[in-house]
Amino acid sequence: MIPRLYIDGPLHSGLPAPLTAEQVHYLKNVLRRQEGDELRLFNGEDGEFAARIVELKKKTGAAQVGEQTRDQEAEPDLVLYFAPVKRGPLETIVQKAVEVGAARLVPVITERTIAPKLNIARLQAIATEAAEQCGRLNVPSVGEPIKFAALLKTWTEDRRLLFCDEAGDEEEKEWGGREGRAEPVLDVLKSIDSKTDGGVEPWAILTGPEGGFSPGERRELRAKSYVTAATLGPRILRADTAAIAALVLWQAALGDWRRS
Amino acid sequence: MIPRLYIDGPLHSGLPAPLTAEQVHYLKNVLRRQEGDELRLFNGEDGEFAARIVELKKKTGAAQVGEQTRDQEAEPDLVLYFAPVKRGPLETIVQKAVEVGAARLVPVITERTIAPKLNIARLQAIATEAAEQCGRLNVPSVGEPIKFAALLKTWTEDRRLLFCDEAGDEEEKEWGGREGRAEPVLDVLKSIDSKTDGGVEPWAILTGPEGGFSPGERRELRAKSYVTAATLGPRILRADTAAIAALVLWQAALGDWRRS
Repeated sequence: MIPRLYIDGPLHSGLPAPLTAEQVHYLKNVLRRQEGDELRLFNGEDGEFAARIVELKKKTGAAQVGEQTRDQEAEPDLVLYFAPVKRGPLETIVQKAVEVGAARLVPVITERTIAPKLNIARLQAIATEAAEQCGRLNVPSVGEPIKFAALLKTWTEDRRLLFCDEAGDEEEKEWGGREGRAEPVLDVLKSIDSKTDGGVEPWAILTGPEGGFSPGERRELRAKSYVTAATLGPRILRADTAAIAALVLWQAALGDWRRS
Repeated sequence: MIPRLYIDGPLHSGLPAPLTAEQVHYLKNVLRRQEGDELRLFNGEDGEFAARIVELKKKTGAAQVGEQTRDQEAEPDLVLYFAPVKRGPLETIVQKAVEVGAARLVPVITERTIAPKLNIARLQAIATEAAEQCGRLNVPSVGEPIKFAALLKTWTEDRRLLFCDEAGDEEEKEWGGREGRAEPVLDVLKSIDSKTDGGVEPWAILTGPEGGFSPGERRELRAKSYVTAATLGPRILRADTAAIAALVLWQAALGDWRRS
């Protein structure tokens, strides 16, 4: 296996590419590589390049960039807004969202979010590692957390929002079900696909905390013209499972999983 | 939140239900419950019942079964065969497969499986906990590991198999691509849905180890009449992500996520 690394800088055949202290540690101590060994490098802009390790000191290192191995490709503009949860499932969300193909990840503080102290730098490092391992040509950014109210206030209406409404029917009954029941997610996505004729609009997915969205939040979301509500099956999914499931279904129905 | 517990025994209104030492520990020390507190009990056969804790000693306890709260429901007959991976992602597979709605989980030892020592009892405990938390009315069993060759040898042909062919195109080219490329998974599942007119046959999903299936295994699988091969998007998914994604897509396209 040839290691793939994300480089925060230009990549052109013949250029040297400096390696970070973390990359040097990873290559040397985790993967046991040495000078002369092969790499693949990408920077989110110029595609992917073959490269060779030319220097591997204690904390510094460099690669020599060779031939381009892949062209840069456009990816679907799909943002994941997710209520942060505790550390294990939080990291699962970030890792899996990158693999499945989200373009950007933003934690959203909802009413029932039991906000952990978020280490965005650590989440970004997890996203970078996932991008390197899954063969992506870019690294999704992990944004600073935003409050639910601010998210809706600053929303640009050309981006559609798939709202994963896991609260179930009990609350629905409480307020008379007047906003209607959420439909099965694939029905929702299929009907959109037939309307937009395969064109890819900017989209986002919003998933809630373990306790779900509050009735007020659900009402507010359902009232927005850009929101599509959907249910993810009859069982109660954990927050991380719901985020992965929604991303997978969107990619398979509207995103780049449609290509073979 | 009222705790839900799986009971390995009969459940009828008015009967006492003994609690296991693990359940007593969980109720007492993790959830801080006491005698008189409410429970929900299910046993995989008789639906779900309200119950009340009537005894909570050091290692023994019992509940008194009250009214039935839910009828038993049939679930799709979907087995997940998965190559075991290292502990973290292995436990993710089991937990998420139960939530998403697999009926049974069986580890399969393939050519490239780096077989960890499997603790089936621990995986079964994770499955039970996931079933209790996601609101299922049964607990999927976690089977003993089976070898790839034995799996195909004992296959009953009325069960269809979705083979998640993550190996990509390189090996395909090596052997001339004569078995054809795998199709995007949702296309495959949609075409089956239109043929079977919504009827639910027995199905299984097979996912591989981190290194994928060997060319020989892929050839063997592709030659079986009951096998449908599908790809899960353009990125390389980790083994646990692939298993979750395949289960989610099957449930949404052919399983019980279709109901609203």
